[in-house]
Amino acid sequence: MVGGGPGAFIGPVHRMAAELDGRIELVAGAFSQSAERSRAAGEGYRIAPERAYASYEAMMEAERRRTDAIDFVAIVTPNALHLPVAEAALRAGFPVMSDKPATATYEEALALEKAVAASGLPYGLTHTYAGYALVREARAICASGRLGAIRKIVVEYLQGWLSRPVEQTGQKQAAWRSDPALNGPGGCTGDIGVHAFHLLEYVTGMDVTGMRATLRSVVPGRRVDDDCTALLRLENGASAVLMASQIAAGEGNGLRLRVYGENGSLDWRQEDPNRLRLKWLDGAEEIRHAAGTYLSQDARAVTRLPGGHPEGFIEAFAVLYREFADGLLAWKSGEPRPMPVTLPGIRAGVRGMRFIERAIASSVKQQWVEF
Amino acid sequence: MVGGGPGAFIGPVHRMAAELDGRIELVAGAFSQSAERSRAAGEGYRIAPERAYASYEAMMEAERRRTDAIDFVAIVTPNALHLPVAEAALRAGFPVMSDKPATATYEEALALEKAVAASGLPYGLTHTYAGYALVREARAICASGRLGAIRKIVVEYLQGWLSRPVEQTGQKQAAWRSDPALNGPGGCTGDIGVHAFHLLEYVTGMDVTGMRATLRSVVPGRRVDDDCTALLRLENGASAVLMASQIAAGEGNGLRLRVYGENGSLDWRQEDPNRLRLKWLDGAEEIRHAAGTYLSQDARAVTRLPGGHPEGFIEAFAVLYREFADGLLAWKSGEPRPMPVTLPGIRAGVRGMRFIERAIASSVKQQWVEF
Amino acid sequence: MVGGGPGAFIGPVHRMAAELDGRIELVAGAFSQSAERSRAAGEGYRIAPERAYASYEAMMEAERRRTDAIDFVAIVTPNALHLPVAEAALRAGFPVMSDKPATATYEEALALEKAVAASGLPYGLTHTYAGYALVREARAICASGRLGAIRKIVVEYLQGWLSRPVEQTGQKQAAWRSDPALNGPGGCTGDIGVHAFHLLEYVTGMDVTGMRATLRSVVPGRRVDDDCTALLRLENGASAVLMASQIAAGEGNGLRLRVYGENGSLDWRQEDPNRLRLKWLDGAEEIRHAAGTYLSQDARAVTRLPGGHPEGFIEAFAVLYREFADGLLAWKSGEPRPMPVTLPGIRAGVRGMRFIERAIASSVKQQWVEF
Amino acid sequence: MVGGGPGAFIGPVHRMAAELDGRIELVAGAFSQSAERSRAAGEGYRIAPERAYASYEAMMEAERRRTDAIDFVAIVTPNALHLPVAEAALRAGFPVMSDKPATATYEEALALEKAVAASGLPYGLTHTYAGYALVREARAICASGRLGAIRKIVVEYLQGWLSRPVEQTGQKQAAWRSDPALNGPGGCTGDIGVHAFHLLEYVTGMDVTGMRATLRSVVPGRRVDDDCTALLRLENGASAVLMASQIAAGEGNGLRLRVYGENGSLDWRQEDPNRLRLKWLDGAEEIRHAAGTYLSQDARAVTRLPGGHPEGFIEAFAVLYREFADGLLAWKSGEPRPMPVTLPGIRAGVRGMRFIERAIASSVKQQWVEF
Repeated sequence: MVGGGPGAFIGPVHRMAAELDGRIELVAGAFSQSAERSRAAGEGYRIAPERAYASYEAMMEAERRRTDAIDFVAIVTPNALHLPVAEAALRAGFPVMSDKPATATYEEALALEKAVAASGLPYGLTHTYAGYALVREARAICASGRLGAIRKIVVEYLQGWLSRPVEQTGQKQAAWRSDPALNGPGGCTGDIGVHAFHLLEYVTGMDVTGMRATLRSVVPGRRVDDDCTALLRLENGASAVLMASQIAAGEGNGLRLRVYGENGSLDWRQEDPNRLRLKWLDGAEEIRHAAGTYLSQDARAVTRLPGGHPEGFIEAFAVLYREFADGLLAWKSGEPRPMPVTLPGIRAGVRGMRFIERAIASSVKQQWVEF
Repeated sequence: MVGGGPGAFIGPVHRMAAELDGRIELVAGAFSQSAERSRAAGEGYRIAPERAYASYEAMMEAERRRTDAIDFVAIVTPNALHLPVAEAALRAGFPVMSDKPATATYEEALALEKAVAASGLPYGLTHTYAGYALVREARAICASGRLGAIRKIVVEYLQGWLSRPVEQTGQKQAAWRSDPALNGPGGCTGDIGVHAFHLLEYVTGMDVTGMRATLRSVVPGRRVDDDCTALLRLENGASAVLMASQIAAGEGNGLRLRVYGENGSLDWRQEDPNRLRLKWLDGAEEIRHAAGTYLSQDARAVTRLPGGHPEGFIEAFAVLYREFADGLLAWKSGEPRPMPVTLPGIRAGVRGMRFIERAIASSVKQQWVEF
Repeated sequence: MVGGGPGAFIGPVHRMAAELDGRIELVAGAFSQSAERSRAAGEGYRIAPERAYASYEAMMEAERRRTDAIDFVAIVTPNALHLPVAEAALRAGFPVMSDKPATATYEEALALEKAVAASGLPYGLTHTYAGYALVREARAICASGRLGAIRKIVVEYLQGWLSRPVEQTGQKQAAWRSDPALNGPGGCTGDIGVHAFHLLEYVTGMDVTGMRATLRSVVPGRRVDDDCTALLRLENGASAVLMASQIAAGEGNGLRLRVYGENGSLDWRQEDPNRLRLKWLDGAEEIRHAAGTYLSQDARAVTRLPGGHPEGFIEAFAVLYREFADGLLAWKSGEPRPMPVTLPGIRAGVRGMRFIERAIASSVKQQWVEF
Repeated sequence: MVGGGPGAFIGPVHRMAAELDGRIELVAGAFSQSAERSRAAGEGYRIAPERAYASYEAMMEAERRRTDAIDFVAIVTPNALHLPVAEAALRAGFPVMSDKPATATYEEALALEKAVAASGLPYGLTHTYAGYALVREARAICASGRLGAIRKIVVEYLQGWLSRPVEQTGQKQAAWRSDPALNGPGGCTGDIGVHAFHLLEYVTGMDVTGMRATLRSVVPGRRVDDDCTALLRLENGASAVLMASQIAAGEGNGLRLRVYGENGSLDWRQEDPNRLRLKWLDGAEEIRHAAGTYLSQDARAVTRLPGGHPEGFIEAFAVLYREFADGLLAWKSGEPRPMPVTLPGIRAGVRGMRFIERAIASSVKQQWVEF
């Protein structure tokens, strides 16, 4: 693991998620750019002291020589390091599981895409929400055509935690996200808008083809956007509204997707992840529950517990790691298309970075932009 | 009452709402443009046969001569008749309570505004949702400043009943709404978008100053818009997203308003009208319930039942009629500003028509427009 | 109307409900045992001064001689007057629509049953909750057998408004309900337990055959029970839990019914009355919405508004008055069974009083009792 | 770990929960009474082959001699083995973390209590629901006195999965639970009633002192109870209703606790575990969310993720393991009271078994029983 040192939120989540299903074990890391803090973090993670490296370069160098080397590298750093770490890992022959967004800029994403292709190595992207069973169900429903042609989509991702200038008061999570040099140019857009965008494309199975976005920096002194509204067009002509905000005071982690087709609609909310609502023009509303025997194979495949036993964010995250582990084994055994199609990969990474780049362009020009 | 004949949805609702609080009685009407159907409707409403008129002109003419004349005229016709009927009523000396939108076009609204001003007569507009106790509470909260400066608003009004071309199969409600000659140019925009717009301005107490709207006619053959998305700017610089749609398959009458301020947010949903959710940056979420002893005076003033006894759409509607009746009495007794400020009037009517006109203009030009 | 004078809650509700559908008009009343207050109430209700009587006896006497006499008597007094007023009305030849419970004691209920039978006159009982569309739907579902044999029922009616001894501080509603002489012996049991009991029998279509109840007077100084828990057995051997409480601090009007059958269950909540939840062993949860085209005929028959437009307590109440009006017309036209089977009548009244009597007996003896 | 072999539900949950926080690692087990299946399970858990033992006796014997011996034994077998395995572990000097209920019978629980006391070793009991942050919050609220004296409690635990005789068709979970020899005499009572009972005492901090229970075996041929209703009295005189059922068709894992005090009430639902509802006599309803900065120290101590990121069943389970690990360390370092008071222990185990025993006694005698 690269990143995830003291004060990180997402590092420990990656550790828990990766290990949850007993398929992966964290054995080495470059957890911080300070050797001392990396070592301290390594102790916290209970790994062997000599495998808590002072830099990711040192880790790649040392691990490639071990007989019990790591099987892959997980990247959980601020965005600006995603590309260099990934390139270093791929160069060293290690598959990569990266936190989102794929890189800091769209150009970097294109470079990464090339590097992944050139390496022939597996690459996964932790768009966490794609790991929820009922997101898989929503995706299966869209694919089944039961909604009829999709006409309208509303995806919103509303948080309130940046309602105040917490990046100026030492909140580490807020600090790097508000610094374009570490984060890339997209603030709210890059942090959560990209999740909303991915969810939209992932569930509908359609590409966005154009967009009109408006980005704002609402909190005085903030250096990146903290509020984003966009109207999007999909490949079939459907229209989508995407709202992402980190100044929606009072909201926690309000990701919600609604998809309206000719016959009915679906509605999924991350804060109530074990239910999927379906509303029909010609029938009663339906609520599908995680672990329902009537769910699609895709949804049932990622459920661990019986009905009524809530699974949450870590479990969804763990689904992606489990699929990555499956993919690694398939890849090692030489299968031609080893990675599960349900696991977001480099294409999703490039799409996401394109979204951020296009959103900024549209907002600056105050115009519609094509993808 | 003018309009509300056979097949009408809103006429009987006006009758129930007007009479609910025992302050108003329906005694005369021109319910249809067919004399026979008007008479039949009159029987249904149990009014005296001679007061079921064949035309609104006949009604104005006859009623103004009666010693027990009507006290005011309620207009519940398709939009294109709102102006002529209102003008005729005002000319005959009758105050007017009109269904929304105020007229069919913005130009007509300006004409009506003049007519109302010239007449000196009371004019009320039934933006029903303004009658809910918890909308009053939301308004009081915004006015109190407790949310801090308002930064972001999301108002959505999603229906599914026009997901199919029902106007082509004899559904009367859909037919006139889809005919620009009867309805005016705004389809979904004029039918429900205007409610969403009103709710936004009503609750926040702020004017919209600019907008970028996109209107679509999604159902093949439809002659007016059935889906509308707009980004709005408010007078304090806040941003709002307004979504109105009648092709959101599976939705019933999904009007919802969320207002985000510096300190927290409020969230009200028409389909769950007796609760108002407040979320705070620094405290637990609150749910205020209709009839709560802790509610503002404005909210308590419009509550009829003890807590836990649901009041609904008709009750909200009836609040507006009750306030109109209060205003009429105050007006008759010569009070200088007789109409309650909580009752939508001609200004709201003009604002609403301006919204429709500007939305269409923005959508056609694909540009931002000022108000 | 008898009762419903100053300070009454339920009198104005009866007036609104009776008149809502334009079938009934309040024209006379004995609103208070004080002539003066009755007259004042009559003015509030806008009835002719001479028809605001000083006593119910005077009303019966005067009205029976009028050519435009009242068509029936609505009883909205404290319980102890239900029997004498009903008997007086029946003797005078007036049908009766009575608030619940039917009488103050079980013995009185038997007497009333005889009086009704002897008179041959229509009698209706306002178990309000039976007027909700989705209670009708629940009843239709039970009758359809789709749940399979019913095995278990949970009905709860939880309120908090008597958590403090408000009857000792001049709250009129609380005062008479806490006085056995005015209210009868059942406190919470008679005020709301009887509603829960009725709902259970009404929806399932089954009779209760035995019970083990525990009544408590939790608030010091209270003279009647304010909390009731009972285990019941139904005629098919199913078991039910009935909870009624008025010291459930924080609750509003929390009536909820859950019915579990072999194949699935239904769940209805009065505070969210326009939805009915169905959960199935072998399929997704369903939410049926008021006005759904897929609802049973019985449910659709009592719906006034399109989907998503909430109807509430007054509308449910009005359904019972509308059915009573239908029944009166059928009765006047000589139909053999004029009253709609969906309208609670004297049988429901006797059952309810039996419930109260049995609950008290079981609680006193601390034993199971048969019905 | 003892138990948790092929087909087990709870074994893998224990593994995930124990390891989630990086404090515990599964290294040995006797997963099945068949040596072969134990070995196979050991492979699944990726432990060293020689530490997948053929019997728990063999495990105790072998592990006590290892220098890298296990630190404690987790018991996840059917109930009838809880006592013998626990005794063997204690005899071998290993602390015990046991699944609930503590034993198969009350007599066994008393024996276990003595064995634990005699050993001086730590003992923990996985009443999972005690690990949810908002159960901790509910407990803190009760302790704070803010609700006033507690008057009434409703705890329900409704499941539907035993609505059909699945134990007769090879469902392993159902089979042993329906066999008194493996399960003990309490069916639904012992499987989930005991959880409800524990939650009640855990949150309120009060002991139950008496009970009137009715147990039923609803499904034909079932050998243990599958439905339980009880009225309980608490040490302060408050009354509680406890409902547990496994024939509540359509329910998943419907554990819910409501506590009513003089001033207000709290309401927690396991299927929506990250919210706690508080309703007040004199103020708005409150919803406390997991990770809220306003939560009690006890609640915040067991939260891993920021607000809006759902934690579920496994995370709650893991809290108990984390506290057990904390307790083990404290115990090893010689602290006088090493185990956290928030972790259920042998006293909770004895109380739970007493509940089952008393429930059966009360139901058989059809009488109130004292505790």
